[in-house]
Amino acid sequence: MAVYYPVLSQSLPARGSCYFPLSYCIRDSKRRRRSNIVFASNEKCNTLNVKVDKLLDRIKWDDKGLAVAIAQNVDTGAVLMQGFINREALSTTITSRKATFYSRSRSTLWTKGETSKNYINVHDIYLDCDNDSIIYLGTPDGPTCHTGSETCYYTSVFDQLNDEEAAGSKLASTTLYSLESTISKRKEELTVPQEGKPSWTRRLLTDDSLLCSKIREEADELCRTLEEKEENSRTASEMADVLYHSMVLLSKRDVKFEDVLEVLRKRFSQSGIEEKNNRTKQE
Amino acid sequence: MAVYYPVLSQSLPARGSCYFPLSYCIRDSKRRRRSNIVFASNEKCNTLNVKVDKLLDRIKWDDKGLAVAIAQNVDTGAVLMQGFINREALSTTITSRKATFYSRSRSTLWTKGETSKNYINVHDIYLDCDNDSIIYLGTPDGPTCHTGSETCYYTSVFDQLNDEEAAGSKLASTTLYSLESTISKRKEELTVPQEGKPSWTRRLLTDDSLLCSKIREEADELCRTLEEKEENSRTASEMADVLYHSMVLLSKRDVKFEDVLEVLRKRFSQSGIEEKNNRTKQE
Repeated sequence: MAVYYPVLSQSLPARGSCYFPLSYCIRDSKRRRRSNIVFASNEKCNTLNVKVDKLLDRIKWDDKGLAVAIAQNVDTGAVLMQGFINREALSTTITSRKATFYSRSRSTLWTKGETSKNYINVHDIYLDCDNDSIIYLGTPDGPTCHTGSETCYYTSVFDQLNDEEAAGSKLASTTLYSLESTISKRKEELTVPQEGKPSWTRRLLTDDSLLCSKIREEADELCRTLEEKEENSRTASEMADVLYHSMVLLSKRDVKFEDVLEVLRKRFSQSGIEEKNNRTKQE
Repeated sequence: MAVYYPVLSQSLPARGSCYFPLSYCIRDSKRRRRSNIVFASNEKCNTLNVKVDKLLDRIKWDDKGLAVAIAQNVDTGAVLMQGFINREALSTTITSRKATFYSRSRSTLWTKGETSKNYINVHDIYLDCDNDSIIYLGTPDGPTCHTGSETCYYTSVFDQLNDEEAAGSKLASTTLYSLESTISKRKEELTVPQEGKPSWTRRLLTDDSLLCSKIREEADELCRTLEEKEENSRTASEMADVLYHSMVLLSKRDVKFEDVLEVLRKRFSQSGIEEKNNRTKQE
């Protein structure tokens, strides 16, 4: 006999019912996976309950029964938002694979996206060394911030202190996405005449032949660092050139680096869970 | 008359003394920058104190006077650790540019690295839309976790639930670094005879000529998506091929993708602050 649980159910009590990672059920039986419904036998369900409870017991909940949860984009690494979780929020996320938090102001569970439909689809969850902080590693269905911004972190403290006009509209970007954003700005500048120093990026953006010859040249130079056993630092430098020039081409073609990473993730399967599923399918 | 403050001082009171971002002082006068010492005039100092206080007032401190702080690697996007901050911790970080937190267990300020010397050098700080969570975007001097792990997030919840042997030793990696890690595993496998399906990555790792011809070929195919106006999805796919094959070459040469990003960051200057400094130097 099988019991079933709607994946998005938020009414699961913190203990005593059946919550378990989807991957486990798939391994158990492919037939038990039906779109949003997960099936499991009572026996398996009980075993998993025990495991999840043990894991929830391991977390150092604070005096209010809460821990910190950080939602991070599995492709770009962008920190999307940060909230708090209680036992129920974490067990719901484990079951539903939609990032779920506990709202301290409303004293209630909430799944990011329940109103906007911009869910964060959780691929894996990580505990920190102190067991009081977790990461939801996932793919967002759309902008995460209620303001419509891609992430909630768009106010630079140093820009604020320097009275920058841009303060409050610059996302907390890591190196690759700062570069992508710079290239994107140069592309926008093409529509208005520029004063001052000419930009190499703008030149590449307007000359396909130059751009492509640079990409081919840099790829060749990267290879030659291996073929001619050059210094390792040369390899890093040539790879930086390959990346930069390729990213100008991506910008020309309106392709985001994130799109490339999505291709890679799907091709190589990002998480252990996915690897496991693939292994199960092959078996 | 100039007053000076050691950059690493943690004895700054939360209000009333002079704390300010380094960049501001550099703009003020190059001569005022002396390794770890920052100089500013009293007048400038007062203006900055007001600004920093205003910013600290804006943060929604909880009933214990705390907010969440997430330290993130500016190059890789890896979440290094998460702690809490009070006014003093944040103002100290703004001044010192070393990620500083408030320890709830020890009721004291602490700068990550004060014992291990593995500081996190803060390039920028971001506030979230609710003003109760911040990101320290920085470069770590070494492993962040007290266990010696690169980050504190190395325990996968789903691995734990699936009784994986690897549970507890897999870093929360985003797509690019999962791929890097997979390539690295294939490289290790070269030393022992493998059963089962041959791996394309292993083959590339043992055949420089094949690897280099693939990199040149994929770079050429990427260019042709522009030259021959192919679908955008083809561009993403070809760029994924360029990346993957180049990353195999990086692995062969013991170069980390992080090293490449460091080159890019230094070349294109990651943060607005650095851009500003460069502008100041040119003026």
